[in-house]
Amino acid sequence: MEDAVTRLRLVRTESVGPLTYRRLMARFPNAEDALAAVPELARMGGRETPPRIASRGEAEAELAALRKLGAAALFLGDALYPPFLAETPDAPPFLAVLGDARCLSARSVGIVGARNASANGMRLAQNLAADLARDLVIVSGLARGIDGAAHTGALAAGKTVAVIAGGLDVAYPPEHDKLQQRIAENGAVVAEARLGTAPMAKHFPKRNRIIAGLVLGLVVIEAAERSGSLLTARLANEAGRELFAVPGSPLDPRSRGTNDLIRQGAHLTETAADVLANLPDHPRLQGLARDPLFRHARSGLAEPPAPLPAPETDAATLRTARTKIPPLLTADPVQVDEIARRCQLSMAAVAAVLLELELAGRVETLSGNRVAALAAA
Amino acid sequence: MEDAVTRLRLVRTESVGPLTYRRLMARFPNAEDALAAVPELARMGGRETPPRIASRGEAEAELAALRKLGAAALFLGDALYPPFLAETPDAPPFLAVLGDARCLSARSVGIVGARNASANGMRLAQNLAADLARDLVIVSGLARGIDGAAHTGALAAGKTVAVIAGGLDVAYPPEHDKLQQRIAENGAVVAEARLGTAPMAKHFPKRNRIIAGLVLGLVVIEAAERSGSLLTARLANEAGRELFAVPGSPLDPRSRGTNDLIRQGAHLTETAADVLANLPDHPRLQGLARDPLFRHARSGLAEPPAPLPAPETDAATLRTARTKIPPLLTADPVQVDEIARRCQLSMAAVAAVLLELELAGRVETLSGNRVAALAAA
Repeated sequence: MEDAVTRLRLVRTESVGPLTYRRLMARFPNAEDALAAVPELARMGGRETPPRIASRGEAEAELAALRKLGAAALFLGDALYPPFLAETPDAPPFLAVLGDARCLSARSVGIVGARNASANGMRLAQNLAADLARDLVIVSGLARGIDGAAHTGALAAGKTVAVIAGGLDVAYPPEHDKLQQRIAENGAVVAEARLGTAPMAKHFPKRNRIIAGLVLGLVVIEAAERSGSLLTARLANEAGRELFAVPGSPLDPRSRGTNDLIRQGAHLTETAADVLANLPDHPRLQGLARDPLFRHARSGLAEPPAPLPAPETDAATLRTARTKIPPLLTADPVQVDEIARRCQLSMAAVAAVLLELELAGRVETLSGNRVAALAAA
Repeated sequence: MEDAVTRLRLVRTESVGPLTYRRLMARFPNAEDALAAVPELARMGGRETPPRIASRGEAEAELAALRKLGAAALFLGDALYPPFLAETPDAPPFLAVLGDARCLSARSVGIVGARNASANGMRLAQNLAADLARDLVIVSGLARGIDGAAHTGALAAGKTVAVIAGGLDVAYPPEHDKLQQRIAENGAVVAEARLGTAPMAKHFPKRNRIIAGLVLGLVVIEAAERSGSLLTARLANEAGRELFAVPGSPLDPRSRGTNDLIRQGAHLTETAADVLANLPDHPRLQGLARDPLFRHARSGLAEPPAPLPAPETDAATLRTARTKIPPLLTADPVQVDEIARRCQLSMAAVAAVLLELELAGRVETLSGNRVAALAAA
């Protein structure tokens, strides 16, 4: 319990995102030591006022509110934390779960698609979800259209998980209020955002990466070009998840995205059999293996993360790194490897300084082991 | 002219199909010698009464009727005979062509599909044909539904070729009477059957193999499972033609066939760009290369066929072959290689005896260099 409070404080600390959290937990033996080191690391990164650290009282209040709601608090590294999600490099350090948290670790498939779905698309989603729910947990995003139909179909035959963009206590979209309750009673509703958060545009891509991370495969039904569902598909593919897409007439713009996914190698999907025949037992490593963070994650983060030793980097090297690295960073993302090569510094020294810069709010770590400079606040 | 009469007599001789014609023309220096050898070869094959050979008068009358209609007579080996079709092992030895025969040798793509097509399918076929007709000749089968829409679309922008199952002077289906005329004026109508032939079920697969043989690629729009369009697709694939299929909703049975083609590797096709980006300059050899007939065909049949020397097989070996081969043949097709291996005979000896048996009406040669026994008449 005490550890949960400390970990939640670290999660809620300014400038600590999923990647920084993971780096801190890898570098320090526990959350308490990591939290204690944050002000000094941020100062070394060039920050003048220390980042705002969530107080013990705030963290205790958040956990108490979740308990009152009947929700579980899951930290990255907990036994119940979904193992495939833990293997993704930007896995959320904290998840609030209403319902049966074990559903998150079950063999699952995502079904997502257009909000303005056709009647046929809704029917397909519902039938496919019902058929697949006999063998698998169905994960979706509780949105209007395909998502809602998939959850509804799944509830008729099995369990379903809704990953929502806002807080657990916020019903969104309003017309899915009852559905959200039914899912909490026959599966699980999952949120990364704190209680009371109203979902905004920026929350949806974060929600989508959780869907992609939970599942072994993702089925896309009706998706226009440049739609959110295609973004989820891209994230799922990067995470080595199997992609499935339901084809449609070229005359329907809602088929453009799914037909294009098939053209790019997604499994053409008409029935549950197409999914079951091609769903692996584990995510592929492809796409993720290039990311050193992921290789680390894979080696142990489904278990409580083993603390890495602090980089064996002497003070003089660190001083050099602190001088050489910042001028190389721009708003255009650059590979961390490239920085190490250009500065002729060890990866350990580069990582140590990047962590400081992150906590100072000066750089942002992106997928593919890249970093970009953030404009000064 | 004299040669045309003799070649047409050989084409119209009983038991001479496309493969037997090709074997005869490869074994003898000209059609006249081949025709003269037919009765003796058939007798050696075990036939008691000689096969009915078309008379000079019959052949002259057929050619005169074609001239009167304004149609051209194309023999395998003629300069105008379409070269890619000539490369298929069972290319028709004779084609009657109304319109511009040069269209048959142009870079072309086939568009085929369901007779009971949806309005959307018809619209797609028409638009796709119109777009592709700017660069390619559009080949189809003049059937109701997709075929008719493809021809109509093509006529709006370029040239089209209709391959019909009956005789050139038979309008089928009746409602495409006018369309058939327009195609003859702005492209070509092609028939393998003689004038006056009303199309019957057995003619359609023969028609389909000509479509498959003429084109570099075949686009299938709306095809139910086990439909004629899928058969054409199979023939096209065996002939090394590129396959394209337009996807559709899993809820429409007319999409089953096309979706399945995509699952098997056909290019998912929404627009002309999908076809143009994947259309090769020559058919692939894959699938055909296994067939020795095809290897021969490839080496020279786009030119007038070079006569092969008669097999250097002595009389005693032939006598042995005539005894050993017939007991090995059953209604189940068997590989010619397998026969040679089992009899411990040269391929030349086996081929010589199989030609006799074919002319005697006792065996049928099938695709993939296989033969099957025919029930005694």
